[in-house]
Amino acid sequence: MKDLKKLFYPESVAVIGASENMLKWGSIIISNIMAGGFSGEVHPVSTSSEVVYGRKVSKTIADIGKPVDLAVITVPAHSVLAVLAQCASVDVKNIVIVSSGFSETNQAGKELEKKLSDFAHTHGMNIVGPNTMGMANFKINLHAMFSHVRLIPGGISLMAQSGNVGNQIMYWAEQQHIGLSKFVGSGNEAVLMCEDYLDYFNSDSDTSVIIMYVEGVDNGRSFMEAARRTTPNKPVVLLKGGRTGIGSKAAMSHTGALAGSIRIFKSAMEQCGVCMVNTQSEMLTLAAAFDTMPLPKGNRIGVVTLGGGWGVITADECEEHGLVLPPLSEDVRERLNAMLPDFWSKGNPVDLVGQPDPHLFRESVEAMAASDSYDAIIFLGVINSFKTVLRLYNATIKLGKDVQMDLAEMERHLDGLQSAFLDTIAELMEKYEKPIYPVALVSPPDQPVVHRSQRQGKYSAMIFKTPEEAVRCLAKQYGYAKYLHKIGRLQ
Amino acid sequence: MKDLKKLFYPESVAVIGASENMLKWGSIIISNIMAGGFSGEVHPVSTSSEVVYGRKVSKTIADIGKPVDLAVITVPAHSVLAVLAQCASVDVKNIVIVSSGFSETNQAGKELEKKLSDFAHTHGMNIVGPNTMGMANFKINLHAMFSHVRLIPGGISLMAQSGNVGNQIMYWAEQQHIGLSKFVGSGNEAVLMCEDYLDYFNSDSDTSVIIMYVEGVDNGRSFMEAARRTTPNKPVVLLKGGRTGIGSKAAMSHTGALAGSIRIFKSAMEQCGVCMVNTQSEMLTLAAAFDTMPLPKGNRIGVVTLGGGWGVITADECEEHGLVLPPLSEDVRERLNAMLPDFWSKGNPVDLVGQPDPHLFRESVEAMAASDSYDAIIFLGVINSFKTVLRLYNATIKLGKDVQMDLAEMERHLDGLQSAFLDTIAELMEKYEKPIYPVALVSPPDQPVVHRSQRQGKYSAMIFKTPEEAVRCLAKQYGYAKYLHKIGRLQ
Repeated sequence: MKDLKKLFYPESVAVIGASENMLKWGSIIISNIMAGGFSGEVHPVSTSSEVVYGRKVSKTIADIGKPVDLAVITVPAHSVLAVLAQCASVDVKNIVIVSSGFSETNQAGKELEKKLSDFAHTHGMNIVGPNTMGMANFKINLHAMFSHVRLIPGGISLMAQSGNVGNQIMYWAEQQHIGLSKFVGSGNEAVLMCEDYLDYFNSDSDTSVIIMYVEGVDNGRSFMEAARRTTPNKPVVLLKGGRTGIGSKAAMSHTGALAGSIRIFKSAMEQCGVCMVNTQSEMLTLAAAFDTMPLPKGNRIGVVTLGGGWGVITADECEEHGLVLPPLSEDVRERLNAMLPDFWSKGNPVDLVGQPDPHLFRESVEAMAASDSYDAIIFLGVINSFKTVLRLYNATIKLGKDVQMDLAEMERHLDGLQSAFLDTIAELMEKYEKPIYPVALVSPPDQPVVHRSQRQGKYSAMIFKTPEEAVRCLAKQYGYAKYLHKIGRLQ
Repeated sequence: MKDLKKLFYPESVAVIGASENMLKWGSIIISNIMAGGFSGEVHPVSTSSEVVYGRKVSKTIADIGKPVDLAVITVPAHSVLAVLAQCASVDVKNIVIVSSGFSETNQAGKELEKKLSDFAHTHGMNIVGPNTMGMANFKINLHAMFSHVRLIPGGISLMAQSGNVGNQIMYWAEQQHIGLSKFVGSGNEAVLMCEDYLDYFNSDSDTSVIIMYVEGVDNGRSFMEAARRTTPNKPVVLLKGGRTGIGSKAAMSHTGALAGSIRIFKSAMEQCGVCMVNTQSEMLTLAAAFDTMPLPKGNRIGVVTLGGGWGVITADECEEHGLVLPPLSEDVRERLNAMLPDFWSKGNPVDLVGQPDPHLFRESVEAMAASDSYDAIIFLGVINSFKTVLRLYNATIKLGKDVQMDLAEMERHLDGLQSAFLDTIAELMEKYEKPIYPVALVSPPDQPVVHRSQRQGKYSAMIFKTPEEAVRCLAKQYGYAKYLHKIGRLQ
């Protein structure tokens, strides 16, 4: 296994081809590293500038005169080999080659890439790329990449065989307050292959979930072995690009990767306990769930809903995804009998018939979480219903009524209630080691997917936008739990 | 067919059981109507108040002394029949019964509902409900319902057999700037059934798309006939709650509706040209697409992408949903050869290899839209990529560079560029009568799904959040076009 520790945790970085021309890679990368808060040393290297963003520029990497843990190369393809030789001369082992113009273009590019990979193997170099948008380690604020995103540090590490797919996932993570640990765009994989990153993320104690966008795998066997080594320790979520005939044709013209038979690939991956997903958004949501919630130990779901229709929709989705809704157990029925009107459904889903009572919310969720009859709880329609009451006040104010209420204060109060309720969900997950999936009535624009509060606990509540998103996520988590059970890693 | 024109376009409305107690239905509904901008007359009726929100209260509906087009009843179930008799005495024909406590509860409730429906049939009354959260007509600002949403008027009319499902869809529509025409929660359907609303929406010139959440249909044949009458004129999108065993059990305890065999229902619906969907969010997005874009006349898709990976993902989704990506046609190749670097893919998807050039964006989309080889265009990664350049500027400013640029002005400029580009998409849809589906790099929190601008045209651009959302929507629209073609309504 390759040691990529210094690649992802460098103490000093050189950017070769550094520039202040904002539209050039040599500027985009160094400005991203310097402005992104990296606390290690950053050295611009260029033959055509004296100073870049206030730093003295070295002509070559050798001129820096200090050890460099990581070099990012942005010079044109035809100069890359010469630059690599300079790196070798001062024993720089970890390199990201952003430059394009290699095997993704034509025969000459293929030959150039072959030379590059031979050189790397001879000199024991770890090379990311070429033709990559770079890499990042959000734990140390290292942004050696194109995307100027600023993410919360978290447990999810992402490898993508496509820069723009990686870019989009990181933008989504930023928007949804989902924390990432590391990113790497593997580019043409001339030297480091997807299985190398998988092995490294497996060994990395800052990574708890691994997500991968893969178009093609050169060495299926070694990728499978890496997957099999990893999944007993942490979940691996994989999106395969080029699943279909036209998709794999598109992949071939994109990265030159041979997609191979998706059916064989998929079943091989599932055998190894890898969670296969079909979309980027599913991948990100599932990763966030793995990172912030306990695993469901079985497929028996308790549903609590503020209104009947959502319960129906959710029950459908559950059955369609291999989950079951056992009848309401006696213990839950008794706890709730006392709190609900006589005509309550007395079934699973538990229908709260619209009662806007936070105490009832907690009681009903806890009753189901505490019951041995359920492995996971879905809770529908409550999140973001708190503030709808403000609309009632606003309407009556508009009609001239003196509501004798400071609405701004009331809004803060309702926000506080909701935040406390989400904390309660996190607490209940810890108390019962069961996942709870709140689905919002509506997610306001600025609502993060992961609820972050002052509370420092083992788990955090997530807020799902739709019942189907919650159910599909739950079903995949259950699939992984089943795998762990099968291999004896989960009781 | 029942005449529901006055029910949906009343000039005067009475709320029976009106109150100023904000948590009571009698307050929620009347404050919503009065504050919501309804320009007709609003009459509170109550035996226990003198004045409600500044209006004099009548003891009974007869005491109003003026014709009432629509009465909304919020009194307890046991008083409803007496109130109905008063309505009949002054010839009020259109009634919404919000009150619950009927067939959804127990045998006594069932019997009460039977009396109610007999009374309505004897007196020729149109009754919505009972046990409904109400109805709305956004074209005339009539909000005779629980949800205090404020929607843009649009062409989509919604019928839901579940108040909370309807409520959620309206909140989503509000958030996404999707316009609605009308809403009705059909409740227990004691008198007016889902087929009556379908027929009315078919006849309503303010409705261009119909969406329905249905848990059960009492008279399958008459619902099918209504569907068959409607789909040649306007698309009907239907979400069936209770598709599965556990889902239909949940539906039964919710509305008492017998779900019946979903397989038979689904194939009957598809025979009638109804678009069946599996989720609320899919329903709303598809309806917005029907309302704002032309139909794809075939299944040949042209894809333009800012980066390769998205093209691969989209090609996969297309093939999985019965769409095809024909090879790049000669005319498109020639138009783009002049504008792209030598090594461009020359295939479909067209990969713009990250070139951030608005002129190229327009040219590539127009080249494909103009070509006879494609029926619809998907355009990936461009929307919301415009402003990412601001992050580069911000990084360099942070590093002390004087960028000699007013960033706020630049932001406005980039926003303007993007808005103009979305207008261009609308124009191209009009010019070529082909739908174009832009998928955003990332949708910022406050971005509407339908782009609205000063431009007054036949179509508007939509912004899709993910490739799969665009492809699935396109595939369903194509399914409807195929149906219209089969019945001779589309060439």
